Amino acid sequence: MSHNTFGHLFRVTTWGESHGPALGCVVDGCPPGIRFQLSDIQADLDRRRPGKSRFVTQRQEPDQVKILSGVLEDGDELITTGTPVSMLIENVDQRSKDYGEIARQYRPGHADYTYDLKYGLRDYRGGGRSSARETAARVAAGALARKVVPGMVVRGALVSMGVKDIDRANWDWDFVQSADNPFFTPDPKSVSVFEDYLDGIRKAGSSVGAIVEIVADNVPAGLGAPIYAKLDQEIASGLMSINAVKGVEIGNGFEAARFTGEENADEMRMGNDGPRFLSNKAGGILGGISTGQPVVARFAVKPTSSILNTRQSIDVDGQEVDVRTKGRHDPCVGIRAVPIGEAMVACAIADHYLRHRGQTGRVN
Amino acid sequence: MSHNTFGHLFRVTTWGESHGPALGCVVDGCPPGIRFQLSDIQADLDRRRPGKSRFVTQRQEPDQVKILSGVLEDGDELITTGTPVSMLIENVDQRSKDYGEIARQYRPGHADYTYDLKYGLRDYRGGGRSSARETAARVAAGALARKVVPGMVVRGALVSMGVKDIDRANWDWDFVQSADNPFFTPDPKSVSVFEDYLDGIRKAGSSVGAIVEIVADNVPAGLGAPIYAKLDQEIASGLMSINAVKGVEIGNGFEAARFTGEENADEMRMGNDGPRFLSNKAGGILGGISTGQPVVARFAVKPTSSILNTRQSIDVDGQEVDVRTKGRHDPCVGIRAVPIGEAMVACAIADHYLRHRGQTGRVN
Amino acid sequence: MSHNTFGHLFRVTTWGESHGPALGCVVDGCPPGIRFQLSDIQADLDRRRPGKSRFVTQRQEPDQVKILSGVLEDGDELITTGTPVSMLIENVDQRSKDYGEIARQYRPGHADYTYDLKYGLRDYRGGGRSSARETAARVAAGALARKVVPGMVVRGALVSMGVKDIDRANWDWDFVQSADNPFFTPDPKSVSVFEDYLDGIRKAGSSVGAIVEIVADNVPAGLGAPIYAKLDQEIASGLMSINAVKGVEIGNGFEAARFTGEENADEMRMGNDGPRFLSNKAGGILGGISTGQPVVARFAVKPTSSILNTRQSIDVDGQEVDVRTKGRHDPCVGIRAVPIGEAMVACAIADHYLRHRGQTGRVN
Amino acid sequence: MSHNTFGHLFRVTTWGESHGPALGCVVDGCPPGIRFQLSDIQADLDRRRPGKSRFVTQRQEPDQVKILSGVLEDGDELITTGTPVSMLIENVDQRSKDYGEIARQYRPGHADYTYDLKYGLRDYRGGGRSSARETAARVAAGALARKVVPGMVVRGALVSMGVKDIDRANWDWDFVQSADNPFFTPDPKSVSVFEDYLDGIRKAGSSVGAIVEIVADNVPAGLGAPIYAKLDQEIASGLMSINAVKGVEIGNGFEAARFTGEENADEMRMGNDGPRFLSNKAGGILGGISTGQPVVARFAVKPTSSILNTRQSIDVDGQEVDVRTKGRHDPCVGIRAVPIGEAMVACAIADHYLRHRGQTGRVN
Repeated sequence: MSHNTFGHLFRVTTWGESHGPALGCVVDGCPPGIRFQLSDIQADLDRRRPGKSRFVTQRQEPDQVKILSGVLEDGDELITTGTPVSMLIENVDQRSKDYGEIARQYRPGHADYTYDLKYGLRDYRGGGRSSARETAARVAAGALARKVVPGMVVRGALVSMGVKDIDRANWDWDFVQSADNPFFTPDPKSVSVFEDYLDGIRKAGSSVGAIVEIVADNVPAGLGAPIYAKLDQEIASGLMSINAVKGVEIGNGFEAARFTGEENADEMRMGNDGPRFLSNKAGGILGGISTGQPVVARFAVKPTSSILNTRQSIDVDGQEVDVRTKGRHDPCVGIRAVPIGEAMVACAIADHYLRHRGQTGRVN
Repeated sequence: MSHNTFGHLFRVTTWGESHGPALGCVVDGCPPGIRFQLSDIQADLDRRRPGKSRFVTQRQEPDQVKILSGVLEDGDELITTGTPVSMLIENVDQRSKDYGEIARQYRPGHADYTYDLKYGLRDYRGGGRSSARETAARVAAGALARKVVPGMVVRGALVSMGVKDIDRANWDWDFVQSADNPFFTPDPKSVSVFEDYLDGIRKAGSSVGAIVEIVADNVPAGLGAPIYAKLDQEIASGLMSINAVKGVEIGNGFEAARFTGEENADEMRMGNDGPRFLSNKAGGILGGISTGQPVVARFAVKPTSSILNTRQSIDVDGQEVDVRTKGRHDPCVGIRAVPIGEAMVACAIADHYLRHRGQTGRVN
Repeated sequence: MSHNTFGHLFRVTTWGESHGPALGCVVDGCPPGIRFQLSDIQADLDRRRPGKSRFVTQRQEPDQVKILSGVLEDGDELITTGTPVSMLIENVDQRSKDYGEIARQYRPGHADYTYDLKYGLRDYRGGGRSSARETAARVAAGALARKVVPGMVVRGALVSMGVKDIDRANWDWDFVQSADNPFFTPDPKSVSVFEDYLDGIRKAGSSVGAIVEIVADNVPAGLGAPIYAKLDQEIASGLMSINAVKGVEIGNGFEAARFTGEENADEMRMGNDGPRFLSNKAGGILGGISTGQPVVARFAVKPTSSILNTRQSIDVDGQEVDVRTKGRHDPCVGIRAVPIGEAMVACAIADHYLRHRGQTGRVN
Repeated sequence: MSHNTFGHLFRVTTWGESHGPALGCVVDGCPPGIRFQLSDIQADLDRRRPGKSRFVTQRQEPDQVKILSGVLEDGDELITTGTPVSMLIENVDQRSKDYGEIARQYRPGHADYTYDLKYGLRDYRGGGRSSARETAARVAAGALARKVVPGMVVRGALVSMGVKDIDRANWDWDFVQSADNPFFTPDPKSVSVFEDYLDGIRKAGSSVGAIVEIVADNVPAGLGAPIYAKLDQEIASGLMSINAVKGVEIGNGFEAARFTGEENADEMRMGNDGPRFLSNKAGGILGGISTGQPVVARFAVKPTSSILNTRQSIDVDGQEVDVRTKGRHDPCVGIRAVPIGEAMVACAIADHYLRHRGQTGRVN
């Protein structure tokens, strides 16, 4: 059962609400003997952390992670013991305010209406469980997942913001992590374009969507499983579980629907180090199983539903209301989705790495 | 664990290879007391069945389903007992032929290479477990899933074939099932366009991709769960598990990434029968939970990898080879993906219907 | 979810009713490359098969297993491919008879009453899904599980029948499988005692319970997991899932409750081949993890509920009735429970073997 | 997967070590709208809490539970929201001491040796994850589970301590919770017997085992499932997962193996309120499904492995050593197992209550 858990051998359970005392996760099944530093986890959390630029929510959360179980200390390092790793992040900046309106109004595009329908009640403070605060826990788990697969590197980048696209010819992975880059864009020339565009959106009281691309390098061949545990399926499932995601594609994705068989085939030749593919339209996965090429996925994030501009809705009593969502919000939630997407891909691959080793006894 | 199983309370396990004696599924958790006729299952299988027109594979498989357990007979009707429903479909037309080449060559775009990498051996006869023959079992399970949610109607349609799109202004659900429509297209005017286009593709020894849209009407509000059991996530997971699918989107999907918050919001007003939405860009799901609107999903199917035209590849010994895939193949596998997509969506919703009832005790 | 499935990486789903056309199982997650012969499976089924002596039910079922998927043939051998292994056993001797009484009366000790309460209907023919016919599928799966753990030997024996116990001083594993031994007793001297005792029980229209002991040798150390996946827990769970089982114990079991800490400790010394234990009161498991010693479990089987002697009950209309259960029944179902218990222990250990390899990357 | 998780719809994940900063659990799937007070949880924890009498470990842990998520406050009450309930208990009395010996020696009967074999390292401080400290988290989860099934009452009692048994004729449930009763015994006359016996054991540097009985009243009929989700199976699994448990039985348990079919049958008559059973040898479960009678289970707890008396063992270097386990230990861990056993039974029944409602739409 998977209401708040994902993964099978590398298994992550998250808990916590936007305005509760804390949130966190339990990672069960992490192999023993993995060495890491707390700063490895913190670094990923810092990349997702709010309040770092004017282009993201101004909520100030230090997002300091504490590890409560599952590790032994050895100097600066932590070593996993094979028992559950419980990680906790305190909520600090739950701004004291009147939730009167949000408690009673169904904000368009939010889960307010559906939570009430489903459960008969909801935690309206900051969106409760439906808040993207929950994704901090995923990022913490993902940081651990990265350590599970030797050599694997999982990176993400924002490739479109609203109607603006990057130029792939300028792709620079190093620039993605640059301090001058508030957008995780891989195209240095796109920064000023995105700045102007998003400033306009923000000042207009609006918001905008985005497309994020995740690439996993050094993924061992043979991970995944043929039918209902396809690696691409589980990556897609993980990415679709991120708040506001409306679409996912692997490799060339929807473009493949427009191609002929010849155009779409990734041909093979023998290289010096063994088989090599002449292209990677498949995104590193054939028949649900990794080929050894980079695994490539993209996902579409809808525009932030919380906007200052007025939208029509109803309230809990069925009265028609006009909703304006004040408060602190990301004008483009797709930006901070980059490290979250990386985490979900890392977790999916780590889980399959362990499952593959279990079922087949091999590590390719 | 989910190598060959999906769902939680409505749980489907499939088995079988392309050229084995049979394939089938076990549906565990189907509620007791559901009445249906064997012809209800067979009708869906017939829609997926190969050999019905020149636009699909010429393999002749009657795909007659047998139900081996889990039901009581009452005249023409079958009644589920709550125990596992085992369904079996015999393979009939496994053409006797020399598998020499296919056994040794890695066909581009197929799972040949990755199966060998993963398992160290593979059933090369007709693609073995990676063959789309497996999807017959899903369709049988989906036919039962449809009966689980009272009133639910799940329908699919082909909306693009290669570079050709339907005109949504002509959408006619009745036409989708018409005998004059070999494509599951909802646009009567598209038939001749698709015929000419696909005849050309076929005669050129090539293949082409497609986009399929699935719409589920009368889905109760409140189904799904907030975080890792989002209804859209599990629909996406199910659709991505179908052979050759490279992308999935819910509602307006990737288009949402281009929108502003105002454009993307589905506003609400009070109607005579309660709350109503003024649009359905969300595709019937907010925060992972159904709103009561139609649930809308689309998926992209890559072109059939088996083509007559020559592609470069290698064989099991690492020798470079030129591969031409003779034999019987669909020039556009996206066509027969329509009933398969319906089945996966029906199963995902049925599973959440039972889970919702279990956790909350409600049925909205 | 586990209504009709058990195991995680080595995962068994069974289906079928007593009087349906067939029953079977799907084994998902079996490692690739395992070589076996069909006769390996059949041999275990033959040990469980009814009709072999006057001490078991006279229902004649050949229990010929067919493997429908998941294997390749190589001469006389079958090789697993890593895909689901579907096994099917036809029901042959569903005696045509009037089920009038059994359909309407709740037989004491049977599941008739509870199935009706739960599902609102039931398949009363031969007990439907609650029949011990289902256990044939477990035995088939268990035969495959034995092949998964190199060198493992799982054997069972009947150690008590009703008030009669074997003499452990006479224990002879070879005798258990002897053709002269209709009871799976390890004590040659007990055969005549059991024969006389059970003939008396049978002729009196009664039935009697039994205790069965299972011993697994050559179980690698390190299998199991600390908390909710303890090896002893999962063995106990598997044994308790067998029809009519009312108690399970590991090692010295309930006797441990009578012991002091000194008496109960299995002390250790260094032997020539490494650590050795001076006793095995723990039954080969400490903290839920195998020690490398033999794994020992015992389970109690209640007397067959179907007896000729009259018992008081009610019928589906709430009328009080006197029930006599005619037909073919085992006077001591505990006898045929021996190979079933072996199968459940083999499956539990095989599953943990794969899980251990997955999580830790080791095989001790 | 269930390394540190149990249950399906009512799903409990625990984490934490004996000497880490805290331990806890996440309860996922708890229905929304359940009202309780924090003191309801605390009361059960207090019953399990160490340090309350000279007959249990002197470690002083207040075991104050904090609820970090999944609830709304309404005055003194908490209301579940349907999202994960995260509960945390801080470890306070991790006595600072030299772990030199315990870090290097394999204590007989403990998991030291097997953890090292499995994981290649272990947290030796207080036994790490294998410590019974973990069971506090179960008790917290169980307190919530009790609220899920309306009217259900789950109670436990110690029925044997070492070679001393209670007299069932004196059974008094009220006395079990009496302040004068440090043993959870239901027989007031047994207190002085147990006191003298256990004082002797304790002063001799030894320990002793126990048998605990759990009775669940007002369990709705129809809970459980036929084959691999039998209610008795899942209760047995839960009880076997408790540290030091070596055997489990349901109803008359092992005694059933000695009975004839007539003796063992629970006959039925019609009472004023519907069907009634004339006895309850089955322990309230037939065919894996609850009958509506009290559910009765018993489990055997081995003597505490940590004793002052010397036992032979080896250390991590394979050197032979004599082990004496100093420190604070329960002379009879079976005593504090009573509330733990209650918790596991409550959780198993709550899970099946939700599953039954999900699959069948009924609540009997």
